[in-house]
Amino acid sequence: MASDRIFNFNAGPAALPLVVLEEIQESFLNFKETGMSIMEISHRSKAFEEVINDAVARTRRLLDLDENFQVLFVQGGASMQFCLVPMNLIAEGKSADYVDTGTWSTKAIKEAQLQKKSIRVAASSEDRNYAYIPRDIAFSRDAVFVHITSNNTIKGTQWADFPQTGGIPIVADMSSDIMSRALDVAKFGLIYAGAQKNIGPAGVCMVIIRNDMLDMVPDTLPTMLNYKTYAAKNSLYNTPPCFAIFTVQLVLKWLEETVGGLAKMEAINRQKAGLLYDYIDSTDFYRATAEAGSRSLMNVTFRLPNENLEKQFVQEALDNGLGGLKGHRSVGGCRASIYNATSLEAVAALVDFMDSFKRDHG
Amino acid sequence: MASDRIFNFNAGPAALPLVVLEEIQESFLNFKETGMSIMEISHRSKAFEEVINDAVARTRRLLDLDENFQVLFVQGGASMQFCLVPMNLIAEGKSADYVDTGTWSTKAIKEAQLQKKSIRVAASSEDRNYAYIPRDIAFSRDAVFVHITSNNTIKGTQWADFPQTGGIPIVADMSSDIMSRALDVAKFGLIYAGAQKNIGPAGVCMVIIRNDMLDMVPDTLPTMLNYKTYAAKNSLYNTPPCFAIFTVQLVLKWLEETVGGLAKMEAINRQKAGLLYDYIDSTDFYRATAEAGSRSLMNVTFRLPNENLEKQFVQEALDNGLGGLKGHRSVGGCRASIYNATSLEAVAALVDFMDSFKRDHG
Repeated sequence: MASDRIFNFNAGPAALPLVVLEEIQESFLNFKETGMSIMEISHRSKAFEEVINDAVARTRRLLDLDENFQVLFVQGGASMQFCLVPMNLIAEGKSADYVDTGTWSTKAIKEAQLQKKSIRVAASSEDRNYAYIPRDIAFSRDAVFVHITSNNTIKGTQWADFPQTGGIPIVADMSSDIMSRALDVAKFGLIYAGAQKNIGPAGVCMVIIRNDMLDMVPDTLPTMLNYKTYAAKNSLYNTPPCFAIFTVQLVLKWLEETVGGLAKMEAINRQKAGLLYDYIDSTDFYRATAEAGSRSLMNVTFRLPNENLEKQFVQEALDNGLGGLKGHRSVGGCRASIYNATSLEAVAALVDFMDSFKRDHG
Repeated sequence: MASDRIFNFNAGPAALPLVVLEEIQESFLNFKETGMSIMEISHRSKAFEEVINDAVARTRRLLDLDENFQVLFVQGGASMQFCLVPMNLIAEGKSADYVDTGTWSTKAIKEAQLQKKSIRVAASSEDRNYAYIPRDIAFSRDAVFVHITSNNTIKGTQWADFPQTGGIPIVADMSSDIMSRALDVAKFGLIYAGAQKNIGPAGVCMVIIRNDMLDMVPDTLPTMLNYKTYAAKNSLYNTPPCFAIFTVQLVLKWLEETVGGLAKMEAINRQKAGLLYDYIDSTDFYRATAEAGSRSLMNVTFRLPNENLEKQFVQEALDNGLGGLKGHRSVGGCRASIYNATSLEAVAALVDFMDSFKRDHG
């Protein structure tokens, strides 16, 4: 069965480690001698508590989180967080800064505005079609947080270094690069990440929140929209998305035990991205769309000489066992998403195919 | 592997049809010749669109929904709906009636109050510890809806017939009995159901909403909290919980094609519940907690002569391959949840065990 699998460059939901899929498959009818599927056990059972506690413990170890941080599992994806962040953290009379690097940042800004929260767009890269990450930004001194999107899946940009905020906590949407590189969490007040790119399947969003941010949350919010609900109950106020959390647990186990942690994951990811960008830069046929210094290690966006060739490229790649290379419908072109679970072998196969396609059509 | 499985009487997450689990397991590494797991394919792919469209189409057929109804998939469980229902449907100057049959109803009421919405508790069964379903309720003529919980998993009660509301649309939390019996949807303006009891795993909530209710939703709500967002985009505004929806699709396929529809499912469920209640009523050793006429076909709650025997009962049952029989921590006692996927064979085995336990300890 495994031999029928393709190299998966989907932007999300995306490739998962094969060993994780195999472990789920193997135990699918009888999880840990319970006589039930992981999908059939109670979220209040000892077996599931071990799953969620282990997922939290591994997150703490991988990111070196101290007791100032809580690890939560929330439903609704990053889009729900676009709504919850301003609702929970921008109180009456307070204001926040947002950096607009396109698409997801723009949506996060719109959701804050929809709630009539006071926010300021401190910087934007809209002037060059979001092909770069703004630098040397002057933030408002009284902002309660600075919101950024650490990686833009569509524009293929990524913050290489996080901004200097003069101590203002950063709130970051890390949906597409969480756990893909070593991270110093000290600057962050809140990190959120839909799981379906680097750490699991669709259906669960990891939220890492610092206690002082949690203290800002008003008690008047609806229960399920209040971060405190999740923090107080270890994300078990109501039935959580058990299977998605179970998969996250296994992916984190793979990251810790097989890969060996985030520094090692980052080295592999840099090797993968380097291989691909170096090849693209060596040709006139392929052209990377993100500016140097702002290029994403996760989503390599590129164009071919024309749209017909791009269409043909995507189809021929798929015929050769390389899937998911079409660019996002909002920008066109091509995109190779090379998250943690996409192997160096897959990237090497892609470069080989790209070179062969160039020879045939260049 | 299947032979190691227990009879599962969990209250939720709960038993799933074995054929569904086997189909998921079989295709887990390569879904429909995509070369990817169902968890790795794009939610915008043709393969996933077929999944979600089929889940909606089967829901429409099973419940005989006409074009006045939309079928949505929302994250956050029924608890999120406790918040979304008043937020979306009780406008400034409007009011709604709620019936309090305990636990979940009570929480739904509290969430509406937390939002400072105008609601009235039209009836309550709190006076007898929620052991019955109120009858002959006088509703406010100007209520925009009447909210009920169709089945209470903890108290073991269920609405046998739905209330006469004089044309006011009913909004029902059917988390624990959706698709367990034939249903005339004409009375309902909105039905919501966390999937993890009768139609799938935890992580997705089905929302069935009538168009005139959808028209009541204000445009000022946060995007992910607005039912219109889901209706406008076939639940694909952002990445949905793909795997949970896929499982729902397979459970609905089983309901339609293997069971043969809701009338047949209801007949089986009545047979299962009848077998169990008849046995309980035939003894002095076991005592059903819900009042006659209000007893649930889904959650059979009962007591033994004392708590020590109850504890022993739950443990010995598990040792005999019958799991999940402990009552909810808030009420104690015992509970057999006998949702759609729990077979008549399982219920017969439970009755046999109960009788043997009674002989040993009665």
